[in-house]
Amino acid sequence: MSRIAYVNGQYRDLRDASVNIEDRGYQFADGVYEVCEVRGGKLVDFPRHMARLERSLRELRIEMPMTLRALDVVMHEVVRRNRIGYGLVYLQVTRGVARRDHPFPLRPVKPAVVVTARSLNFSKNQATAAHGIGVITVPENRWPRVDIKSISLLPNVLAKQQARDSGAYEAWYVDGNGEVTEGSSSNAWIITTDGRVVTHPIGHDILAGITRDVLKETLAALQIRLEERPFTPEEAYGAAEAFVTSASQIVMPVVRIDGRTVGNGKPGPISMRLREEFHRFADFS
Amino acid sequence: MSRIAYVNGQYRDLRDASVNIEDRGYQFADGVYEVCEVRGGKLVDFPRHMARLERSLRELRIEMPMTLRALDVVMHEVVRRNRIGYGLVYLQVTRGVARRDHPFPLRPVKPAVVVTARSLNFSKNQATAAHGIGVITVPENRWPRVDIKSISLLPNVLAKQQARDSGAYEAWYVDGNGEVTEGSSSNAWIITTDGRVVTHPIGHDILAGITRDVLKETLAALQIRLEERPFTPEEAYGAAEAFVTSASQIVMPVVRIDGRTVGNGKPGPISMRLREEFHRFADFS
Repeated sequence: MSRIAYVNGQYRDLRDASVNIEDRGYQFADGVYEVCEVRGGKLVDFPRHMARLERSLRELRIEMPMTLRALDVVMHEVVRRNRIGYGLVYLQVTRGVARRDHPFPLRPVKPAVVVTARSLNFSKNQATAAHGIGVITVPENRWPRVDIKSISLLPNVLAKQQARDSGAYEAWYVDGNGEVTEGSSSNAWIITTDGRVVTHPIGHDILAGITRDVLKETLAALQIRLEERPFTPEEAYGAAEAFVTSASQIVMPVVRIDGRTVGNGKPGPISMRLREEFHRFADFS
Repeated sequence: MSRIAYVNGQYRDLRDASVNIEDRGYQFADGVYEVCEVRGGKLVDFPRHMARLERSLRELRIEMPMTLRALDVVMHEVVRRNRIGYGLVYLQVTRGVARRDHPFPLRPVKPAVVVTARSLNFSKNQATAAHGIGVITVPENRWPRVDIKSISLLPNVLAKQQARDSGAYEAWYVDGNGEVTEGSSSNAWIITTDGRVVTHPIGHDILAGITRDVLKETLAALQIRLEERPFTPEEAYGAAEAFVTSASQIVMPVVRIDGRTVGNGKPGPISMRLREEFHRFADFS
């Protein structure tokens, strides 16, 4: 099936969906994005993604390209036109098209909006979760404002590729204090041997994941103790369980860190329970 | 006059020059660029720019999109078609188009190539140089591989905008040691009261500017002493002269740093001499 994208006011076949070469997203990575999970044709936690989008745009002084209501219509329409039951919808907003020059355009231009969607293979993702994934740790080398969900993702690309080259699936960043911040496209979590769930606190040094946020509510509802504090790779090696969260993976068990087995080398029971229960606490629209 | 761009094999009117929305340059800043000065219709120091391009691509494991000879033809053709006497030619190479996923595409795709050119106003640039520019200092907040000339430029955009908001023209980064690394789109230089020219040494923390490189040869030929070592903002405030270098500005005198006057507040004689003599040492092709 050919895929349909929304680009600056038009629904186009993805093969013909294009932007001008002087779109500042292309020349300066001057834009932001969001990825939402789609389940049963519904967008998961859409209002929270839109709130984060508004924040990212505000931080970069990019205008909202259209009302939230219009964006809601467009994103649902892209999901509908691509007949996505289970998958992802991707939104990108850049500062727009202007003659190449580093500072913001003197005369404001219209921000550019792109929306795409794709199906994911549910069985395949479940099979991956049933086995768990491996992660490696890498030195934190991104700028100190990764709380802004920008498309300036080259360091993340290289970290993810380094993971793949090592036979792992994700890379966890370790900052100057020797503590894990987050993954290259996910938040990082461990579970201690006495059942406390641990993840890095919110700040400029991690992205405030929507899945992370909803999982906090899930933990509260299930009366599982949460500690928002940094942890070291060494603590993670000795943890009972570990997992990553993101819109595309929800809760994905980690069974190997830097080649060391976590727990008994199988996805942990708490991680799997969180994966199963998560959508009871998510919003569908 | 409408502008002509080269995009993936075709010369197009700039308004119709576009790339697919899944070009990894647009979604991940996964690409590199070069900017060459054009003088008298000739490309300045083109072979050195191409050598740096090859290095940047190699660091990111992106294939050269065409032979250097073909790229030479394309870039000269874009300059010719746009009738550039004095101006810039811009080249961007990205990893190519692939379904959005952080790691490199499993099946290699063809890198994307974009070339644009534009005229600059010679008199206006000379007038700017005759007055000199102001710079501000900002904390270094880029990733530690800025020696790769990547399009992951959002931090540079924000620093440049911060300079403009402060009534200055450029921002100089100050690293964790309290030392100036370089500008957001230029290399940073000072001249001590006893006539030594000082600039940060080459490393992963600055871009190895081509103009910087040729200026080193200019200094040697003019028997002006060069010290490649870091300097602090405080040393810069007390310097006799200061300037920035880039392909678009060659040698641009700095007369104000963080609101403090440098020297007598006018472009210094050594800076102006270097600006005048530079092109005697440059290569034209």
